[in-house]
Amino acid sequence: MVKLLGSVSESYIRVLRECTPLFVLVLGTTDTSLIPGITIAGASPELTHYTPAADAEYLVNGKCEVIPVPPMTPDGKPTPALISRACAQVLDIPIMVVVAGARVRPCSVPYIDLRGEPGRDIRTGQALDRQIVEKILNNGVKLGSELARLSKFLIIGESIPAGTTTAMAVMIALGHNAWGRVSSASPTNPVELKKKVVREALQRADLLDKPTDDPIEAVSKVGDPVIMGVASIAIGALRAGARVLLAGGTQMCAVTAVLRRLLGDLDPDKIAVGTTRWIIEDKSADMIGLLSEIWSNYALLVSEFSLGSSKYDGLKAYEQGFVKEGVGMGGLLCACEARGIDHGTILSKVEELYEKEMLALKQISTT
Amino acid sequence: MVKLLGSVSESYIRVLRECTPLFVLVLGTTDTSLIPGITIAGASPELTHYTPAADAEYLVNGKCEVIPVPPMTPDGKPTPALISRACAQVLDIPIMVVVAGARVRPCSVPYIDLRGEPGRDIRTGQALDRQIVEKILNNGVKLGSELARLSKFLIIGESIPAGTTTAMAVMIALGHNAWGRVSSASPTNPVELKKKVVREALQRADLLDKPTDDPIEAVSKVGDPVIMGVASIAIGALRAGARVLLAGGTQMCAVTAVLRRLLGDLDPDKIAVGTTRWIIEDKSADMIGLLSEIWSNYALLVSEFSLGSSKYDGLKAYEQGFVKEGVGMGGLLCACEARGIDHGTILSKVEELYEKEMLALKQISTT
Repeated sequence: MVKLLGSVSESYIRVLRECTPLFVLVLGTTDTSLIPGITIAGASPELTHYTPAADAEYLVNGKCEVIPVPPMTPDGKPTPALISRACAQVLDIPIMVVVAGARVRPCSVPYIDLRGEPGRDIRTGQALDRQIVEKILNNGVKLGSELARLSKFLIIGESIPAGTTTAMAVMIALGHNAWGRVSSASPTNPVELKKKVVREALQRADLLDKPTDDPIEAVSKVGDPVIMGVASIAIGALRAGARVLLAGGTQMCAVTAVLRRLLGDLDPDKIAVGTTRWIIEDKSADMIGLLSEIWSNYALLVSEFSLGSSKYDGLKAYEQGFVKEGVGMGGLLCACEARGIDHGTILSKVEELYEKEMLALKQISTT
Repeated sequence: MVKLLGSVSESYIRVLRECTPLFVLVLGTTDTSLIPGITIAGASPELTHYTPAADAEYLVNGKCEVIPVPPMTPDGKPTPALISRACAQVLDIPIMVVVAGARVRPCSVPYIDLRGEPGRDIRTGQALDRQIVEKILNNGVKLGSELARLSKFLIIGESIPAGTTTAMAVMIALGHNAWGRVSSASPTNPVELKKKVVREALQRADLLDKPTDDPIEAVSKVGDPVIMGVASIAIGALRAGARVLLAGGTQMCAVTAVLRRLLGDLDPDKIAVGTTRWIIEDKSADMIGLLSEIWSNYALLVSEFSLGSSKYDGLKAYEQGFVKEGVGMGGLLCACEARGIDHGTILSKVEELYEKEMLALKQISTT
């Protein structure tokens, strides 16, 4: 069963159980992901720009077109999009892909464009022009309110390599102590490198030890398009009366920090964060500490799903701290659990998809 | 009340009445609209490229950003988007904007991108690369099936200047006698010019008197991105079990012709065309004749709504044959009527929106 932490309300879980949620995946890129060693979400720094589009294509279609290989490491650790796709299939829910601002866009899936731009390296102190962040905010709010007319429950996930670094920077810019408390897709979180990058970014943006209360300033100087994309869709949906699950790890703490500034208090009867055990168990991060500092009345759902009993080493790697989150995986797993889908059903769907990808990988490596 | 022609089924109307339909507006441009005199959907041939984006912005937001003026002629004849916005407001339904392929995209509304391209002048005989038409088809089908999970009834409209000319060309390319039977946004339909352009296009495409049965060939040689965008979304929606109303005039006959080739027979219990009185009464066109030739078992809804009793000359101009259709106006009016909304309610919402635009127009012309 899904674990409920903080102030998750019964009525929130009841709505999640009873309506058909809509999964919204928000994509983006930041040139911060080009910094060597900062992320493992891509075979090389340059290829990280392809990861969000590939994730969306895999999620929706079960195969990628923007990259010519299956979305997994050469030794078979798959993208979280594989788990997310398995969840979406067993949940039988609709998916909408949103591009907040990305260098590479999906080829083979229709997506909603918020007319943002890809983020620059945050060490410039000018990640996005302020008017671009405002445009993402305006378009995202409109989108959220339209989507809320289509479903009473939005699960909003993200895909943006180096997103935990930009998240750390945004939280610190807004006055929270996020130094070294964000998670990582790697079992060895490059905490010192992230702190160095964030320090440089804040210094350049003149925000080091001088936090701002303006979330648009924080995101435009040291953030990324996805943080504002997710926040804005959530705002539109909440205003239109829908409930929202922010599906992700420590990046969603940054989204929550932005939402708190834009909306005032957040009602745990209307919005929660949903993530994986792997994030909560990550000793190099502090998701609960961060979230409770940002949102005292926080609501957090944690999936208990494990891949420890999988037949495949590539999947078992998740239990050693690889991947952990992304592409809405945690929130979707929570939704499965809340809706009474047992772990065996999820696991066999995950393994079925995994087998197909391993076969494709083998065919490529033998040709 | 809405007029039902052909084989419209009772259960179709019941679903339209009982569920919350989703309005999908498909935008595109074709360089065919640059031919002087072929369309009045824009103050100059070049400005026709801005019309679809402006329509979408007005429809969703009630104001345009891609053009600096209200979307109406200087003497106050408004875009059909004004009537469509009024309908969407009284219906209280969600809207999704889709770009099939356009030179100018909306700034201030989120939209779904099918990753198509703007259409070339059809006189080239190469309006769109075949692979682009296939991409629109593939992405549109996926989108339609996702949208069908969100609403059981899709109303699909279009905005593409010179769309009746490309529609004529596509229908003839597919072997239908559409010569001079398509309608126009002008009270003086430039029939001879359209026929000349279509003849040149078909000749260049080697389709004159040599029709094809391949709708992808017809659209790629002499069509536009919107015809395939609308058709593909309809296919995805129908496959996923939703009902579809093709909201438009003679352009939707071309969509129907494409659908017939791609799907075989069309079930009037699942799909219909919805348009305005103004199109049916257009003596320079032959919507019913065209539709019944393409789809013997056709289902057509016609709105009885009139602007004859409006206080405003700009609106009364619709009764003299200006505008007639576009931006899903006819289908949305039919939906209002089917759902029991009386003409007085629609008219007062239309006049309320019109007054706001006239005020804006006056402010511009006095500064």
